[in-house]
Amino acid sequence: MTLIPPATDIARLDLPRPYLLFLGDVTEAGYAKTAFGLRDWAREQCVGELSFANAISIGLPQLTPAEAKARGARSMVIGVANVGGRILDTWVPSLLEALVAGLDIVSGMHSRLATTPALAAAAERYHRRLIDVRTPPRDIPIASGRKRSGKRLLAVGTDCALGKKYTALAIARAFQQRGIDSDFRATGQTGIMIAGRGMPMDAVVADFEAGAAEMLSPAAEPDHWDVIEGQGSLFHPAYAGVSLGLLHGSQPDVIVVCHQPGRTHMLGHAQFELPSIEETIDLNLTLGRRTNPGIRCAGVSLNTSQLSASDAQQLIAQESKRLRLPVADPIRGGVEFERLVDACLETR
Amino acid sequence: MTLIPPATDIARLDLPRPYLLFLGDVTEAGYAKTAFGLRDWAREQCVGELSFANAISIGLPQLTPAEAKARGARSMVIGVANVGGRILDTWVPSLLEALVAGLDIVSGMHSRLATTPALAAAAERYHRRLIDVRTPPRDIPIASGRKRSGKRLLAVGTDCALGKKYTALAIARAFQQRGIDSDFRATGQTGIMIAGRGMPMDAVVADFEAGAAEMLSPAAEPDHWDVIEGQGSLFHPAYAGVSLGLLHGSQPDVIVVCHQPGRTHMLGHAQFELPSIEETIDLNLTLGRRTNPGIRCAGVSLNTSQLSASDAQQLIAQESKRLRLPVADPIRGGVEFERLVDACLETR
Repeated sequence: MTLIPPATDIARLDLPRPYLLFLGDVTEAGYAKTAFGLRDWAREQCVGELSFANAISIGLPQLTPAEAKARGARSMVIGVANVGGRILDTWVPSLLEALVAGLDIVSGMHSRLATTPALAAAAERYHRRLIDVRTPPRDIPIASGRKRSGKRLLAVGTDCALGKKYTALAIARAFQQRGIDSDFRATGQTGIMIAGRGMPMDAVVADFEAGAAEMLSPAAEPDHWDVIEGQGSLFHPAYAGVSLGLLHGSQPDVIVVCHQPGRTHMLGHAQFELPSIEETIDLNLTLGRRTNPGIRCAGVSLNTSQLSASDAQQLIAQESKRLRLPVADPIRGGVEFERLVDACLETR
Repeated sequence: MTLIPPATDIARLDLPRPYLLFLGDVTEAGYAKTAFGLRDWAREQCVGELSFANAISIGLPQLTPAEAKARGARSMVIGVANVGGRILDTWVPSLLEALVAGLDIVSGMHSRLATTPALAAAAERYHRRLIDVRTPPRDIPIASGRKRSGKRLLAVGTDCALGKKYTALAIARAFQQRGIDSDFRATGQTGIMIAGRGMPMDAVVADFEAGAAEMLSPAAEPDHWDVIEGQGSLFHPAYAGVSLGLLHGSQPDVIVVCHQPGRTHMLGHAQFELPSIEETIDLNLTLGRRTNPGIRCAGVSLNTSQLSASDAQQLIAQESKRLRLPVADPIRGGVEFERLVDACLETR
């Protein structure tokens, strides 16, 4: 069995693409975020989907592993999550079928693929790889704190799970459309699958957190931009340490603060009120100055997916006036988003 | 071989004590901090030392493993560190001798004991344990952020390695001398060996950092105090995430800020100026309020080991006046330290 070698190098090696997306028996879209993310942001890397009868579809061609292989797929991605973060017995036959068909398996689940004995045995027999993208490289250094060349943008948030990944992806796409030399730098499992590489920041040992962020976003050409996916929130009672290590190690020149209007309390920690956007800007700038004194906030990204188009438009205008900053919903785009992108690129 | 079992439970199970302290071939006191710490803070748990000819001594009886076993020792502690954090070939014969004599081995080094094949084989043959105190338990929860009963004090710092552990130990000792129900809560390898239990905070996966601090210091009687060893500094470019997770999870009612007069730049990161004591108080209170709105700073602990007694006395008086807070060197003690302890216990 070739487990992806010395824990290595998710940060450097490409994942085997294109993918077949495995949806299994999932019936709620909320559990298929990875599959939707891949469809929306790496469509050209997805040859099709494999879902059981009665499960949801994300609208790609339904393919068996053998059919996907014939269309060029190199791996099957587990595109769903469940509460326990583990491989279900009902999935195993499909995963085995993929290995037999010549596909590697890519997982972002908490439990490692090789802990399912049938998968470990089949991977060895068929010389396939079981790739856990939550496994960080083993050779992460302690952060040096030294300023690196190149420019960096970090999406930060008032809370978890409100649009930091989509904001970073949209900004990275806009940069590329403008011909700017740039990379999206993924920090979570879905982002890593979309980018084909990255650093699972929440799985890194705490002492190496800032070092992992330095490794993820190495020194680059002076005009190169890294657009870095954020994690957690400095205000989150469980994950703030992850956010601070990522902020320190990323040394961002620019932050964009992400927020979901209407969210009043921290996700999963309802006794904690959400901080205001202004508090979130201030704290990120205060702490971020430690490793980049030039850090600035370019603007605010609002996730208005729960509002009508006209309500969203109105709120974006209000908030931009109130905060005196560019405000946009990157998914809605429009001139507001172009102004936010302009502000990110502004030179001082 | 009985590696210390699942979930290791360093946090809950006692290490096998008393100890024989292994000093090996170390010739500089700076590399024997663990041994000195054990001698100074857990003298009753140390039956003797084992050091090679020409190595330093910490002034305990020189004993072979067999002699130590006869005097009641249950384990041999590797009381020294080296730059690579690994077991040296020259140490292996003594470690094997300890296993043969019936002692377990306790290590705080980065590399695990069982990765030395001769030790793994001997531990299995002689039914001894190889205990790596840097290995965190496996069942650490995500932090809940819920307020726990009991009182908590956290030693925080302007930097790493300037007296947070000694400050917490001295305060815990003073609490016990006053008859206050309290526990010293260790967060690093030396502290864990001194207390016989604890949580290696820098070795915990980042997502679980605050959860590990919650686990280390569980709900207790309303009048019980946990005195928690700090780690790193919120201003440290590599370790701030560790410090923030520990601060959030500890939910301290009281912080004591530790500083070494004369230190102007961060240890090992000379391009970073040290923050002032006031900045350190402010940032810890600002961030600590997130999980305990009642957090307050009781005072300042100065490590004056590099000053004369009279210079130390003068500086302590000056700083106390300037900061309008109790200031003391816990190692020097005196009325200043008693005042600092009073301030920790003050009820509001």
